[in-house]
Amino acid sequence: MQVAIYFFICVDLSLALFEEPALFPLPFLATSIAEVLCLIAFFGRLVHFAKVTPQMVFWKDTKNICIMVTIALTLIDLIIYGSLEAVNIHSVRWSRALRPVFLINFPESRQIRRTFRSIRNTLPDILYVFLLFMFSVLIFSLMALKLLGDRGLRTVEGLPYFTNILEIAFELYVLVTTANSPDVMMPAYNFNWWYSLYFITYIIINTYIFMSVFLAVVYNNYRKHLKNEIRKLAYLKRHKMMEAFNILKVKVGSEFVVMEARWRRLARTVMPHISSPHLELLLRISDEGQKGYVDKMNFLRLADLLNIQVVTMNIKRHPLEEWMPWVYQSSASLLIQRMVRHRIFVWVYDIIILINAIFIALDEKNPFISYAEWLFLSLYIIEILLKLYTYEPRAYFGKKQFWNWFDMLIIVAALVATVANTTIQSASKYNSQQVLDIVLILRILRLLRVIVSIQRFRLIVTTLINIGPTILTFGGLILVVYYVFAIIGMEAFHGKVRFFDPNFTTPDALVCGNPALKDSAFARDRYCKNNFNDLASSFIVLMELTVVNQWHILADGFALVTHQAAKLYFISFHVVVVILIVNIFIAFILEAFFMAYSLEKSEVETAIERKIQELGVGIQEEEMHDGKLVDNMDAKDSGFSGDDGDKQRKALKGLYFRIASKKYRTVDALLQQMFESEIAPEDEGPPLDEILNFSPSDIYPKVPNFENSA
Amino acid sequence: MQVAIYFFICVDLSLALFEEPALFPLPFLATSIAEVLCLIAFFGRLVHFAKVTPQMVFWKDTKNICIMVTIALTLIDLIIYGSLEAVNIHSVRWSRALRPVFLINFPESRQIRRTFRSIRNTLPDILYVFLLFMFSVLIFSLMALKLLGDRGLRTVEGLPYFTNILEIAFELYVLVTTANSPDVMMPAYNFNWWYSLYFITYIIINTYIFMSVFLAVVYNNYRKHLKNEIRKLAYLKRHKMMEAFNILKVKVGSEFVVMEARWRRLARTVMPHISSPHLELLLRISDEGQKGYVDKMNFLRLADLLNIQVVTMNIKRHPLEEWMPWVYQSSASLLIQRMVRHRIFVWVYDIIILINAIFIALDEKNPFISYAEWLFLSLYIIEILLKLYTYEPRAYFGKKQFWNWFDMLIIVAALVATVANTTIQSASKYNSQQVLDIVLILRILRLLRVIVSIQRFRLIVTTLINIGPTILTFGGLILVVYYVFAIIGMEAFHGKVRFFDPNFTTPDALVCGNPALKDSAFARDRYCKNNFNDLASSFIVLMELTVVNQWHILADGFALVTHQAAKLYFISFHVVVVILIVNIFIAFILEAFFMAYSLEKSEVETAIERKIQELGVGIQEEEMHDGKLVDNMDAKDSGFSGDDGDKQRKALKGLYFRIASKKYRTVDALLQQMFESEIAPEDEGPPLDEILNFSPSDIYPKVPNFENSA
Repeated sequence: MQVAIYFFICVDLSLALFEEPALFPLPFLATSIAEVLCLIAFFGRLVHFAKVTPQMVFWKDTKNICIMVTIALTLIDLIIYGSLEAVNIHSVRWSRALRPVFLINFPESRQIRRTFRSIRNTLPDILYVFLLFMFSVLIFSLMALKLLGDRGLRTVEGLPYFTNILEIAFELYVLVTTANSPDVMMPAYNFNWWYSLYFITYIIINTYIFMSVFLAVVYNNYRKHLKNEIRKLAYLKRHKMMEAFNILKVKVGSEFVVMEARWRRLARTVMPHISSPHLELLLRISDEGQKGYVDKMNFLRLADLLNIQVVTMNIKRHPLEEWMPWVYQSSASLLIQRMVRHRIFVWVYDIIILINAIFIALDEKNPFISYAEWLFLSLYIIEILLKLYTYEPRAYFGKKQFWNWFDMLIIVAALVATVANTTIQSASKYNSQQVLDIVLILRILRLLRVIVSIQRFRLIVTTLINIGPTILTFGGLILVVYYVFAIIGMEAFHGKVRFFDPNFTTPDALVCGNPALKDSAFARDRYCKNNFNDLASSFIVLMELTVVNQWHILADGFALVTHQAAKLYFISFHVVVVILIVNIFIAFILEAFFMAYSLEKSEVETAIERKIQELGVGIQEEEMHDGKLVDNMDAKDSGFSGDDGDKQRKALKGLYFRIASKKYRTVDALLQQMFESEIAPEDEGPPLDEILNFSPSDIYPKVPNFENSA
Repeated sequence: MQVAIYFFICVDLSLALFEEPALFPLPFLATSIAEVLCLIAFFGRLVHFAKVTPQMVFWKDTKNICIMVTIALTLIDLIIYGSLEAVNIHSVRWSRALRPVFLINFPESRQIRRTFRSIRNTLPDILYVFLLFMFSVLIFSLMALKLLGDRGLRTVEGLPYFTNILEIAFELYVLVTTANSPDVMMPAYNFNWWYSLYFITYIIINTYIFMSVFLAVVYNNYRKHLKNEIRKLAYLKRHKMMEAFNILKVKVGSEFVVMEARWRRLARTVMPHISSPHLELLLRISDEGQKGYVDKMNFLRLADLLNIQVVTMNIKRHPLEEWMPWVYQSSASLLIQRMVRHRIFVWVYDIIILINAIFIALDEKNPFISYAEWLFLSLYIIEILLKLYTYEPRAYFGKKQFWNWFDMLIIVAALVATVANTTIQSASKYNSQQVLDIVLILRILRLLRVIVSIQRFRLIVTTLINIGPTILTFGGLILVVYYVFAIIGMEAFHGKVRFFDPNFTTPDALVCGNPALKDSAFARDRYCKNNFNDLASSFIVLMELTVVNQWHILADGFALVTHQAAKLYFISFHVVVVILIVNIFIAFILEAFFMAYSLEKSEVETAIERKIQELGVGIQEEEMHDGKLVDNMDAKDSGFSGDDGDKQRKALKGLYFRIASKKYRTVDALLQQMFESEIAPEDEGPPLDEILNFSPSDIYPKVPNFENSA
């Protein structure tokens, strides 16, 4: 069901690729039938949704209303456009800009909705700062007009300099984005160097201070809003746990408790795949005195306990050791294993990688170097085989062995691609460009393995990988905003600027097929391919506008081929994307890094760890670090401890537990943990109604386990 | 003494204006004598310092060692340079780059030192991120070389595109600063649009993620370091208060206390200008039960109590009311007063300001408009006179009436300048350009008064004004870094690029007097005035480099006239100023705004306020707000309550107290208050030695009161 909806959303959004102005043109009939199909699917989903949820809740939910209105508007637009098209009048398909509404409002995209809500809540605060900022820009524009307007100065292009208040305001707005610094200053500075003070003042006030204030306001609101949402979730979780306790409780002595058998059954229902030893461990923690029941305080912790990843480690022998002990335990084999585990082994391979980098940088047409490529490839494969020989393979490719997987994939892919390339080359004497490009990229990506050897680098990269999923949320957000702006841009600017092959030097090609661009910076910089002629090009133009530099050249170019008012499109894109969304992105990265820096174990985790130690089934993290237990390089992120022949360890047969590495927690979980620690254990939170009324949209647990609230 | 030292520091730093390459050239003999004089002054100061402080402390202090070494090095350099100059060999005055050492290390510039320490502590963390970042740039450079190097592509200027690994690495570093986006992408994008994916990936990873990580690391360290410093101060204060208590204590009953008379004497010694009613108020708070002594807990609060600004308000009558009560109280006069206090009065003047803005934007050569100017000026003067008539003048121009002073100053200055301009004009038929510019700027600055009327704007501006002093600290920091880079830049690049009048079009002028710049972007954009030929020009170039945009054009230009290695100078400037200092600046603004947002009253303040209320001598903040007590517009930031004829208020004759407006606290004080609240009242802190050993440089209280520790 979910997959189907996502499929239809994708189809709906990608219709823009086939509609005029199209990358792959299809007749209007085909795209409109596809669109109607999508709308039917969305409507069906909505009807299904209405049946499942209580009617009152359904109609109160803005999401559902939004979807219905959008479906209706799209149908109306389709009919109008279709009938006008039938009588050959070309009109605007404005409802296409509404399509992202479906992406935002389907209940699965909760993260994007949360970010949108956060933006909406930030708007009033931002607005005041923005007004003050615009006021400051206008005051400075007036000053510039009065100070410089009558001097008869000229820009480098020979145009009059600072004579029109609107142009000055636009130039000064561009200066805030730094895109036209120092060019906008040069004529005045050349005239008299005192005027540079005016620009320096302007830059300090508007570029530095105001832009930082924008970041501060966005960041502050983001944090406030996030805290609020997470607090709501935490209270909701507490509330649900209280409800569960009230259903299951039994009076023993003076207090209400939950009996052991019931507790076990509950845990099994919630988490069907939990291993028995793990469950036993949790019970021992919850029922400290082994009294046969779990009291209220400990019961409320159940969700947290279940959420902490406890890795159950079944210490296994290396398969080779089981099959051929006499070979694997021979002194030659043991020597190899000791060698592979040694630090020098890692260093030797780091040096090999560096030499490889130098070889890549050299010219590869030299046959000697292309043979060397095969040498390096085989060296890497030998490394992996040696590691697999030394470490237990199932542990080496454990679920969370990100770096081992990375190593393996890169090298196997490089091997496959190189072989494929050689085959094609020798078969047809022809270099396939795409395959060759891929081989090259894979060959260079191999160099990333150096990062693995340096502890500090791994920490930074792991933090970045941890925030990856949330960065994808921003991907969704960016997609929505880009889509809307791309549709508007295509309606307004398509066909105005055309791209010619760069080798063409006809007068038409030099002005991007539009005489209005003659002598413009847009044509001079050869920006013809930055146009809105199809969805892919539009996205790339919008990406360039996000990076900001030279955006005024693009804005000027499109204003020249249409109307000066077109600049408003570019200014509003800057305000929405750069001032709002990029700042939220920065706020998010900052918050994630602060979290990572202030990372400490939660109370519940400490309790579990203490119990593991008490029971003597733990593997100390220090042991993991000191390189005796497993090789230092592979143990850091591991969450496993391979069978490594360490005698002391072997004595303790059976199961071992370890709390999964801290580095693999998600930012969301971290935040929740932080705010939860602010709720006192006795606090039962506000009544459910209050929590629900706070925002009715985000509180349906989809699957009956605790994952949603974590 | 302090003033003298600052004078000599200024002289020493400004010597660079007179030395070759000079703005105002002076012979070497003159500048070297001036420099020797400065060095003698610094040495004298140091000797004086050594006498005052214990010998062990003096020699342990890195500051003093730094100053001595710098003095010695400067003397050596002066002798070498002087003797070489005597035999006509030109050498480099390298010790000039060391001059800012004096600015940093004299004990008065504690703030700058703190920021430098903060930077030093951030370096190791930054270094790892930077290495990883450089690694990523190199990996991407290798990829670009392999993917695009052999395609035979050309840039817009017709140069080969992406063929040399070093050039690629530089281009990609520039892309991180966004300065060459999208130009660097266009040739590859024009060739095949798939290559844009490479650049998009690069921008996401390096421009967005890595740059945010830099900000995160800098911000995190800044906060950590700040917290540490402030904690040290807070502990030191607590320690000193404990010492004082132990000296003054007397045993009464079972506890040690300080008698009232002693407490009074202490308070008077520490704060000689405290008013008797204020002291009485503090005593009533400290000695809650009026037992005649102050106990330990309350004694420890003394410093905080004294630090809180309690405004003693002597309700005064309007002077006119005292002199001519029958006129001032007449019904016509009362009507005027009521009118001025009304909101509509404010609105009318806002509209006048807006009309004024339109008039300014219009052409001023029209005689009608220049008469209108006089009309507006007189309207503003009438406004101020009316306000002075209505409000008590001494209160209206109270110490902290920033906006009233601002109003008054702007209008008086505009009046003086306009009159002066008219006089000059009619006397000599000649427009003095400078005077006219000042008149124009003042006329436009008047428009800022609109901000005063809108509450939300005032809040933002007041926060910005509050952080003003600390922004000045950054001014000092920037000055130090700019000075060092400017000296190096002048030694390396002076005379290489020359500026010609923009109207010259001789071939020499078009290439900035250096044939190496032929066909370069530097010459094409007419950047000739961006040179290192004197200190002022160097500073402006460095400012442009700080703003980042087009920095690669400047770097390329100076590399062309010297050597490609010159780019290293520009890259290191970017790393130091943009990645480090600008990020610290942003971190600071963020922190200041978060403080302002989470501003709450401290515990001690609440205690004082409660006591003021109990004693019935308070003026409620709400009363201040509701516009009855004083007019809404002027009361917000006031800290005074004028005599306004409100009957109820009049009944309570005499003194009134009010806690000074929260908005005027400094960020430092706020931070300290925040961290102090984390120290439990019983906590006596670590022993003094430990606090002192922590960092020996920041702990000498200069004046024997509590201001240093607040």
